[in-house]
Amino acid sequence: MKKAVILLSGGLDSATCLYWAKQQGYDCHCLLFDYGQKHKKEIYQAIKVAQSAKCSYQIIKISLPWKGSSLLDNKLSIRQATNSQLLSTNIPSTYVPARNTIFLSFALSYAETIKAVAVVIGANALDYSGYPDCRPAYFRAAQKLFNLATKAGVEGKNIKILTPLVNKTKAEIIKLGTRLKVPYKLTWSCYRGGAKVCGTCDSCILRAKGFKEAEIIDEASVKL
Amino acid sequence: MKKAVILLSGGLDSATCLYWAKQQGYDCHCLLFDYGQKHKKEIYQAIKVAQSAKCSYQIIKISLPWKGSSLLDNKLSIRQATNSQLLSTNIPSTYVPARNTIFLSFALSYAETIKAVAVVIGANALDYSGYPDCRPAYFRAAQKLFNLATKAGVEGKNIKILTPLVNKTKAEIIKLGTRLKVPYKLTWSCYRGGAKVCGTCDSCILRAKGFKEAEIIDEASVKL
Repeated sequence: MKKAVILLSGGLDSATCLYWAKQQGYDCHCLLFDYGQKHKKEIYQAIKVAQSAKCSYQIIKISLPWKGSSLLDNKLSIRQATNSQLLSTNIPSTYVPARNTIFLSFALSYAETIKAVAVVIGANALDYSGYPDCRPAYFRAAQKLFNLATKAGVEGKNIKILTPLVNKTKAEIIKLGTRLKVPYKLTWSCYRGGAKVCGTCDSCILRAKGFKEAEIIDEASVKL
Repeated sequence: MKKAVILLSGGLDSATCLYWAKQQGYDCHCLLFDYGQKHKKEIYQAIKVAQSAKCSYQIIKISLPWKGSSLLDNKLSIRQATNSQLLSTNIPSTYVPARNTIFLSFALSYAETIKAVAVVIGANALDYSGYPDCRPAYFRAAQKLFNLATKAGVEGKNIKILTPLVNKTKAEIIKLGTRLKVPYKLTWSCYRGGAKVCGTCDSCILRAKGFKEAEIIDEASVKL
């Protein structure tokens, strides 16, 4: 069985990726990151998602001495988003400098160590917050780097970056995940770590819009 | 003054890079990694090098749950190298999967956060151990990724990867560093963390060869 490393965040996109990769026949190994997020809720939920899929997981703990994002820095506030803001080209304060590059580099290291053939990441570039490291061109460049970076690549065994959701709308992702029986009630998308989802951050707005367009009830949300 | 992030390992190449970047007029900010190396000696020496150059430094602590390299895993032995082995195309057991990719991704994150215009890395592809992530083609691919990965790149402020040593022999590097008054006696190249350098690992062999060819005495080594 071919191995794949799945970047798992606790949100609905990466959970969908995990179930998609399982359906594709991969032996899935999840990678979670504790990188100084303001709240740990997404990590706990990611663990539950990995367990629900009966897959192994590793947590990478990173002490970033710098902040530069409202997801990391208590002094910076997370904006209350609107749909029109999400459609603008401005990159919001929740952007974490080089986050996907850091995540992918660890995934590459892990994949090469366990002889995995693929790294799966749940980025998407349609219903998203405008982060530069979610765009297809970014992943094409990352694939070229992967091929040159590793002993595996030198030996002709390139580790593929798979982005099954990159060109899907949030509604299409949710429809796909529902068919794959992704336990969305275990996932956590809200940027704030409250007892309940806030319903006003970029991530909550995108999630609510997706479930509404897919005409599916979001069991994880009490706000809808 | 333009800022640069310098990847500092404690070895002679990165120390030369730091002094080179200072001479180029950069305000230098050093980045050190505690990533589970068998010995911490190189980190202590990197701190001394940063202090000698009167530059700030940050230490990133990473808990890698996997090993896959004789630099990390006590169960794997570091080979006693010969010059002919170093010239072969085999990648030795000291190779750490995706190490430079991980280091560069953190450097990119730090550079973007502090608004640095460059990341300097002391890789070289002539007198080296054959690691794939030290080759010029690898750094060209990394530059393309850097440009696409960041908000800075989207805004047309690309962060440059500088590899001033990539096409130099070890002797040329040592001659350059000697002109720049790099305190080589503070640097540590040996893969083993003994009280004295071992003189038999790849890194010791390359260092000794470089000083010999440069006709310069290595004050840090008692073996020469």
